[in-house]
Amino acid sequence: MKLVRFGPMGKEKPGLVDPEGKIRDLSEIVPDIAGEALSNKGLAKIAKADWQKLPVASGRPRIGACVGGVGNFIAVGLNYADHAAETGAAIPTEPILFNKAPSCIVGPDDDVMLPKGSVKTDWEVELAIVIGERARYVSKQDALSVVAGFCICNDVSERAYQIERGGQWMKGKGCETFGPLGPWLVTVDEVADVQKLGMWLDVNGERMQTGSTKTMIFDVRTIVSYVSEFMVLEPGDVITTGTPPGVGLGMKPPKFLKAGDTMTVGIEGLGVQTQNVIAWK
Amino acid sequence: MKLVRFGPMGKEKPGLVDPEGKIRDLSEIVPDIAGEALSNKGLAKIAKADWQKLPVASGRPRIGACVGGVGNFIAVGLNYADHAAETGAAIPTEPILFNKAPSCIVGPDDDVMLPKGSVKTDWEVELAIVIGERARYVSKQDALSVVAGFCICNDVSERAYQIERGGQWMKGKGCETFGPLGPWLVTVDEVADVQKLGMWLDVNGERMQTGSTKTMIFDVRTIVSYVSEFMVLEPGDVITTGTPPGVGLGMKPPKFLKAGDTMTVGIEGLGVQTQNVIAWK
Repeated sequence: MKLVRFGPMGKEKPGLVDPEGKIRDLSEIVPDIAGEALSNKGLAKIAKADWQKLPVASGRPRIGACVGGVGNFIAVGLNYADHAAETGAAIPTEPILFNKAPSCIVGPDDDVMLPKGSVKTDWEVELAIVIGERARYVSKQDALSVVAGFCICNDVSERAYQIERGGQWMKGKGCETFGPLGPWLVTVDEVADVQKLGMWLDVNGERMQTGSTKTMIFDVRTIVSYVSEFMVLEPGDVITTGTPPGVGLGMKPPKFLKAGDTMTVGIEGLGVQTQNVIAWK
Repeated sequence: MKLVRFGPMGKEKPGLVDPEGKIRDLSEIVPDIAGEALSNKGLAKIAKADWQKLPVASGRPRIGACVGGVGNFIAVGLNYADHAAETGAAIPTEPILFNKAPSCIVGPDDDVMLPKGSVKTDWEVELAIVIGERARYVSKQDALSVVAGFCICNDVSERAYQIERGGQWMKGKGCETFGPLGPWLVTVDEVADVQKLGMWLDVNGERMQTGSTKTMIFDVRTIVSYVSEFMVLEPGDVITTGTPPGVGLGMKPPKFLKAGDTMTVGIEGLGVQTQNVIAWK
């Protein structure tokens, strides 16, 4: 299934993208694409609904982040060997984890705002994992059983805040609008092989990132299992899994976003995001 | 006011500690000590209630974390000059920030569980700030206007996970049960000077940490203002502000927690926590 949230920011309704590409309103089935609705039981309830009887969303509503009520927004750093190389970092021997602030989450096509005074805001196309079941010490083998599905995350990053402001990366990762998620939460059953998805990111129509989830250093199962050793995962937690080469920081000279730029972000089977970059306000 | 949450884990009710020390049930006034109830408007509503007419909680209920629905649990590292010295770290020139997983939050007297295989679990008495209003780019001067109140946090830490497992501290900070908060959320108006609070931590009755919030490198106003430059703060977010000297890691030789230990944790005016340390299960 392709699940969406649609409507004005903060008032999104749960929806389903039907086989014809129309959004069907799921409000009668689940209160939100969040929490309990992401559990195996919740997803089964949605799957059982007769989509042809669900109301079609009228007009062209705004698409919100595809998951609501995110409690913990975790990110994996340097998880593609080529990207580690372009940033000059060593290949990690175990996953590097940091946090994005849940308050940075926005819809896939919402504006991305440069922080006040920022001159080093950068892009990162990433595959994000949406957790559906509470998980602690889950094995690699069972890891997908606690995952509701996958979506695109643009892990927008302010490199000066991330690297030059005192040691821990989270300062440059959670700024307002730095977490576009969506357009769809694609459930696990609909992704044939999550480790073989092409991915790309354009800025102003120019291809910046091209990659595939097949070159991840730590795969999805490993990441979920690994994170669950260090903290309890809960339904609605999101883990974004790192970016392939082509970020602005890695260019010679480095290239960063400016107001007026447009990012287009895609992963095979997971849809496309489009964000306009705007100045701080 | 001293606000509490009482009852079984996950089913806590909101409460008020009355002048006689009894817990009064606030369920008729606010749904939880969380979100909107923490706003200036929400706190005013609680303050206006006639506490003598509120039902007294029966028996001796479990005390839960004093704030519910925490979205972002942020921590400040090395914020006491003496503590920075004992860990061998340089004094930071700006606040070091990292995250604790919201899923690590427990009540002030709940058990603290050693992670599977852990041999370096450590204690940290800290003053925690509970955010009451949405805040972005708040000035130092206005910082307290977005704060609902303060509470004790034992920033329990697994030092091997924090330092030896790949660069970012959050791995050793958010393990299950690593975030006791409470017993009370003491509102800002009730704390005469938040930068003059004595604080201490005992293990098995032996004093390990003695300090005062007066020796913070970055004070509460500075921290709130600083964090709000990097991310939007929301009601229910918690910022724990660093620990004074006396953690196990700083001892020669280092000393860590073992199953059967008891921690007692206090801050002047904010109450006392008591946690038994248990083995992984």
